Amino acid sequence: MTTTELSPYWLRDNCPCAECRDPRNGQKLFQITDLPDDLAIAARAELDGHLEVLWSDGHRSRYPSEWLAGNEDGDGRTEADKRLWAAADFARGIPEARWDAYLADPAERTAVLAAVRRSGFAVLRGVPAVERQVLAVAETFGYVRVTNYGALFDVRIEPDPNNLAFTSAAITPHTDNPYRDPVPTLQLLHCLENSATGGDSGLVDGFHAAALLRAEAPEHFAVLTRTPVPFVFRDRGTELRADRPLIEMDPLGRIREVRFNNRSIATLRGPAAELDAFYAAYRAFAAITLRPALQLDFRLDPGDCLIFDNVRLLHARTAFAQDGRRHLQGCYADLDSLSSTLSVLERRSAALDELAALFEGEGAGEYLGEAVTMAEHMLQAGALAEAAGAGPHLVAAALLHDLGHFFDKHGRDTLHGRDLMEGRDNRHSHTGADRLARWFGPEVTEPVRLHVAAKRYLCAVEPDYRARLSEASEYTLQVQGGPMSEEEAAAFAAHPGAGDAVAVRRWDDEAKEADAVTPDFTHFRPLLAALMR
Amino acid sequence: MTTTELSPYWLRDNCPCAECRDPRNGQKLFQITDLPDDLAIAARAELDGHLEVLWSDGHRSRYPSEWLAGNEDGDGRTEADKRLWAAADFARGIPEARWDAYLADPAERTAVLAAVRRSGFAVLRGVPAVERQVLAVAETFGYVRVTNYGALFDVRIEPDPNNLAFTSAAITPHTDNPYRDPVPTLQLLHCLENSATGGDSGLVDGFHAAALLRAEAPEHFAVLTRTPVPFVFRDRGTELRADRPLIEMDPLGRIREVRFNNRSIATLRGPAAELDAFYAAYRAFAAITLRPALQLDFRLDPGDCLIFDNVRLLHARTAFAQDGRRHLQGCYADLDSLSSTLSVLERRSAALDELAALFEGEGAGEYLGEAVTMAEHMLQAGALAEAAGAGPHLVAAALLHDLGHFFDKHGRDTLHGRDLMEGRDNRHSHTGADRLARWFGPEVTEPVRLHVAAKRYLCAVEPDYRARLSEASEYTLQVQGGPMSEEEAAAFAAHPGAGDAVAVRRWDDEAKEADAVTPDFTHFRPLLAALMR
Repeated sequence: MTTTELSPYWLRDNCPCAECRDPRNGQKLFQITDLPDDLAIAARAELDGHLEVLWSDGHRSRYPSEWLAGNEDGDGRTEADKRLWAAADFARGIPEARWDAYLADPAERTAVLAAVRRSGFAVLRGVPAVERQVLAVAETFGYVRVTNYGALFDVRIEPDPNNLAFTSAAITPHTDNPYRDPVPTLQLLHCLENSATGGDSGLVDGFHAAALLRAEAPEHFAVLTRTPVPFVFRDRGTELRADRPLIEMDPLGRIREVRFNNRSIATLRGPAAELDAFYAAYRAFAAITLRPALQLDFRLDPGDCLIFDNVRLLHARTAFAQDGRRHLQGCYADLDSLSSTLSVLERRSAALDELAALFEGEGAGEYLGEAVTMAEHMLQAGALAEAAGAGPHLVAAALLHDLGHFFDKHGRDTLHGRDLMEGRDNRHSHTGADRLARWFGPEVTEPVRLHVAAKRYLCAVEPDYRARLSEASEYTLQVQGGPMSEEEAAAFAAHPGAGDAVAVRRWDDEAKEADAVTPDFTHFRPLLAALMR
Repeated sequence: MTTTELSPYWLRDNCPCAECRDPRNGQKLFQITDLPDDLAIAARAELDGHLEVLWSDGHRSRYPSEWLAGNEDGDGRTEADKRLWAAADFARGIPEARWDAYLADPAERTAVLAAVRRSGFAVLRGVPAVERQVLAVAETFGYVRVTNYGALFDVRIEPDPNNLAFTSAAITPHTDNPYRDPVPTLQLLHCLENSATGGDSGLVDGFHAAALLRAEAPEHFAVLTRTPVPFVFRDRGTELRADRPLIEMDPLGRIREVRFNNRSIATLRGPAAELDAFYAAYRAFAAITLRPALQLDFRLDPGDCLIFDNVRLLHARTAFAQDGRRHLQGCYADLDSLSSTLSVLERRSAALDELAALFEGEGAGEYLGEAVTMAEHMLQAGALAEAAGAGPHLVAAALLHDLGHFFDKHGRDTLHGRDLMEGRDNRHSHTGADRLARWFGPEVTEPVRLHVAAKRYLCAVEPDYRARLSEASEYTLQVQGGPMSEEEAAAFAAHPGAGDAVAVRRWDDEAKEADAVTPDFTHFRPLLAALMR
């Protein structure tokens, strides 16, 4: 949209001011009905990268231009945001990761969850093959959805099965629990034992199958999107029923969910001609799901855990001989929490990219007349902390302690602490700590906040400390308030964070050596990522 | 549909034979693609209340006529199955029950859950006002849905709230968690303390509001059903987004879900004209939800637990003064399990109706030449067990021990055990036990199954027992195999259920007194209902 055509209620509903939106949690503080019936833009001006609006009711709003021009990601749930696949697309391997790498490395975790969101599945290898472990896997990205099968279910032969899954029979591609609404949107299957002949797993991309149906027989596709199908499951203590179409579209006509399970389709009712049309469409869709080119086959070995999208992918298994044992444990979970976890990981990764860019950009500038750049100074401080065996939070604090020099109090970049060098205290320790608080907890931000106070403290309590200060540091000491008084020093020493702040301060003071060899920012990324909670 | 026009694939997909459908769990054993492409009815006949079909592939099916003519209930989730309401509809009271009655009496439980399904809410009173109790309430009918707020959440003032709910501010009608997909379909709010001025609760029927919008402004209604709205929630560890319409219809155009939460609507994007149309419709809908006539207001006192449909009802609260404490605990759950629990309760109630009808119908017949009717005999046996202080399972077994006389081996009614009186053992103890196994566990069915064996056993081990048998019982003893041999008696005595079977047998023998005053079947219903697990 250009700013010349703006929808008034839309614009006002998005006013970012603190009166309209709680600054703490971003929630709107007014109701849409609070706005007057004749709301209009009284005056507007584009200024300083913002659109400023005076409203007919006197309210004023200020919108960043990039927000106005911007676009939003969708929720990622329709075919538009998926990679539709056939078996051959994974000829070079399926999305998989080692369990230990998945736990240790956010990039690995991001890749696995992104694969589930985009391709509908991933396999974790080397997950301890112990009972109930599947619940721990689900809890790495979301919440277990309990059903009538329990928090977890055992897939193995049962003497009196209430479900075909608990026999040794082959099972053709299907989705689980279509008789639930809300249906569990994710399924996990963790292999504990698989020494039987057969019992291989198969996956079919139901969105791809539906898209093929739409291309090959649009009339069949239309019938399946508009026919609510009664899915039913009954046993002694359960009587579930959901009437939902096999293929569900969003309001814009994009494929959003697939339910497919011949076993649990109960009696559809209607005129014979409609039933004929449904069954012709259903058979055509079923035939597509059985095309060998669509089905990706693989074997789950003990320790493998398959995670897949149960409103998109159909899963299958071959029959197995009773010549060995086969035991999977499964549970359900939901896509929304998985997506949330992935988004937070991506947000953190973007934050690390932002920090990396600061080290490479502003960080290349000179550091208050020292012989090193800002980036070299901070990387040296981080490396010194690491070499000293400090905890990750102190390595991070040392690495990031001077970040505030890159921003003034309004969040605008400054030229390498020029304010400070011109005799004004830019309060860089506070600016840096506040900036870091978006991503890190107080164990990282507070030593940063206190590292200037620590200098003033050390000057007060260690006479020879001040003598060792660099010339620039001695100069800034004056701007920062000089050495602490006796009372100030006592109060500082009593602060629970004083020890950490002093430690960071000492690495800070040492980290000014020209031509020292230090690791670059990339080296610290995993440590920083792990601290972002 | 008449049987002259039948959809062949539909009919075949519903074949009830044991080859097509697993008799143990009712699941289909074939895939729709297993059926030949040219499937046709080769021959058909209506016979004995059934349609018999010979298929072109040689398969034979047999369908009860009442199934062919029948209709199915839907899943109960659209406006078609709801009672749409305004506040005045509850002028004489809201759906509510005492917690202890809800726990003790299946009829009370049925009424509460049916109110949630049909009106969207109910209140339990006298729920112990202790922490975490709300989880126990949810577990009486389903499973707790864990979210980023935890398994349960505390609604009270928080110092640094991530949600307006955790302040003392008024909150206008809204649904919760619209940024989740799947959204939790039920919410529970359990009041632990409410001594603040204000903080009253309000509910609005969102389906009713949507139906009013459709009636008053169909163009607005249409816009809201076809516009995916971005609902977003972000905090440090969460980033949820769901793009869903405010009003969601099923494929047949019936209102099925409502999401409404101004606080969490993020930036919708589109041409200004579309945004104008959306905001006009959204404001019109919001105004309807705020009509005082629609909002049902009530106060939750300590011990009250409100259960409501979160994809239909909007909930609100008035602001409260900080002159007293207000503390609710809430959790989420889902409608599907609630409906399942309700259906199972209804199924059990129907089974009790069926038993009651047998006592009144077949039970009025004579009892093998005794001076009492069958029903009188069984009621006397049940009453004797009860008077003896027997456990509920034994009272039930005594009450139902001769039920098998009402059925022959094929489940058809017999004329009061005529087979037996004509010298053929109708094995009524087994028939009765098998019939009862649909509803009761072995603690009830096994004494029924063994009560004839117990007679043969007692004749073997208690010489004067046989002498006391009634004439009819002495006669049937012969048909039933006569007294046990010594080996048979030893084997019987070793059976873990022998004691219970003998106890039932003794009440059976005593329960033949003409004109004894006994409670009627209704008296035993709660006891039977509690045993149906």
